[in-house]
Amino acid sequence: MKIIFNSNLDDPAEWIPELKARMPELEVEVWPDIADPRAIDAALIWTQPPDGLKGYPNLKAILSLGAGINQLDLASLPQGVPLARLIDPALTEAMKDFCLYAALRYQRQFDDHAAAQAQRKWIYRQPRAKAQTRVGVMGLGELGGAAARALADLGFAVRGWARTSKSIDRVRCFTGAEGLEPFARETDILICLLPLTAATRGILNKTLFRMLPTGARLVNPGRGAHLIEADLLAALETGRIAHAMLDVFSQEPLPPEHPFWSHPKIVVTPHVASFCTAVSAAPVLVENFHRAMAGRPLLNQVDLDRGY
Amino acid sequence: MKIIFNSNLDDPAEWIPELKARMPELEVEVWPDIADPRAIDAALIWTQPPDGLKGYPNLKAILSLGAGINQLDLASLPQGVPLARLIDPALTEAMKDFCLYAALRYQRQFDDHAAAQAQRKWIYRQPRAKAQTRVGVMGLGELGGAAARALADLGFAVRGWARTSKSIDRVRCFTGAEGLEPFARETDILICLLPLTAATRGILNKTLFRMLPTGARLVNPGRGAHLIEADLLAALETGRIAHAMLDVFSQEPLPPEHPFWSHPKIVVTPHVASFCTAVSAAPVLVENFHRAMAGRPLLNQVDLDRGY
Repeated sequence: MKIIFNSNLDDPAEWIPELKARMPELEVEVWPDIADPRAIDAALIWTQPPDGLKGYPNLKAILSLGAGINQLDLASLPQGVPLARLIDPALTEAMKDFCLYAALRYQRQFDDHAAAQAQRKWIYRQPRAKAQTRVGVMGLGELGGAAARALADLGFAVRGWARTSKSIDRVRCFTGAEGLEPFARETDILICLLPLTAATRGILNKTLFRMLPTGARLVNPGRGAHLIEADLLAALETGRIAHAMLDVFSQEPLPPEHPFWSHPKIVVTPHVASFCTAVSAAPVLVENFHRAMAGRPLLNQVDLDRGY
Repeated sequence: MKIIFNSNLDDPAEWIPELKARMPELEVEVWPDIADPRAIDAALIWTQPPDGLKGYPNLKAILSLGAGINQLDLASLPQGVPLARLIDPALTEAMKDFCLYAALRYQRQFDDHAAAQAQRKWIYRQPRAKAQTRVGVMGLGELGGAAARALADLGFAVRGWARTSKSIDRVRCFTGAEGLEPFARETDILICLLPLTAATRGILNKTLFRMLPTGARLVNPGRGAHLIEADLLAALETGRIAHAMLDVFSQEPLPPEHPFWSHPKIVVTPHVASFCTAVSAAPVLVENFHRAMAGRPLLNQVDLDRGY
């Protein structure tokens, strides 16, 4: 079996040995050094190569190197080739930790303490208990479900919202358009882990923000296009949202002139909430290589109608 | 039973109802409104009243409103009256969360991200895995033991150091003076949760810092007097210590002119790493009131020779 590898973030020298250790017969060609496009069975890519993979007539699978596929221009990819997202245990674990960190940061008032430190002021205040701190997780799939469970395990009062009905122990779940307002009204810390689809694009907007309690916090480790940036700036101005942690942006890298960088109520991180590692992802990828060669459905195969 | 209550931090209106709900016969007098000092059976105090409790001839117990007793001037208290620290489940839980937060903050490089944000720079870097991040906990008692277990549960590589030999699952424990150097050499994130005694005063000093790997992080939610402040400033200067989170200080509130406030590599929080709450502490206190009246040993009774 022979694959093409292409990424502007991932080092093939890190990934190829992990894959070959589990599948010695695998041959990997790193774009643009492709000997014969007809010999390529599958593509392992974060970003697509400029030729869009259309010149590879025997491609049996396109495997993303990330949890999403929004970095890909689907129209430029060959139609009918199964496409899969990459969900590995390390990705889920890192995202869960990011959410725990964010929830503790807000519950324990570390941002207030940082503001007081900047003014050399000692302001002692006991935080609201975790059991009285309501964390609302939007998206209850692989990542959102794991985050919601971990937050509940730590003792937060967790609510979840998803497109379809979900049941998670100790998490109060809300569903669909009619569930959004009752969910948002009970959310002190809002975490967005939705997939990016036509239905969720721009969902973090002024209509949603007005449903939140005054002084709510926003955490977005999902996708930048979930957020209407101007609506967040306005909500921070009125105090409807007290503070935000943003890890993803409509344009990445976030341009140097962007107002988020210097906003006193926004923490910017450079798309680091989660990441796959070669050692953790290799078993999932090798399984999907075997499935591709056998013509079987892929793990985490994308349903293009649903959008994820 | 009748007690005296005194604190410069805790509101008696919050504590008295929780205590009386569990012990209706309890009478509480808030200093300085004491009708008859001879009628007082026990003292519940954070800070001692100016009279030092020596004018209360029938005092059977002195109960601290905190985990430590270092806020008290022991010489001014009546000798021979049993003294107890207050360890309640909320205190342990809050301290554990503070340590999880601090470890994630450093492992996930949030301080580097904050420095990059201040410069409007997008610097993508994957963190070292938790299993390769060595957290060293000094002090393995009620608080340090709980923190070490929780950090190990989360996946960190945890080491512990204590005066006497301890055994904690998945925590590599080092003991006594001869164990300090091998412990410190393997510690990327050092968390101090020791009791403050003659033996631990000033233990966070240049000798210890020189044993740490270059670029180590220091977290001190213990007591301010554990730290030699000038040695920390010097270690931050050389880079031996890359960053510090300090919650306690030799002088509290930290004076406005103190260099820690504006140090770019120090996070100052106002002694909030942990705290008792009335609802969580009341059962422990009521148990100790009963023990005091019966002349039995107190929960968390202080051994004055040991110092905690």
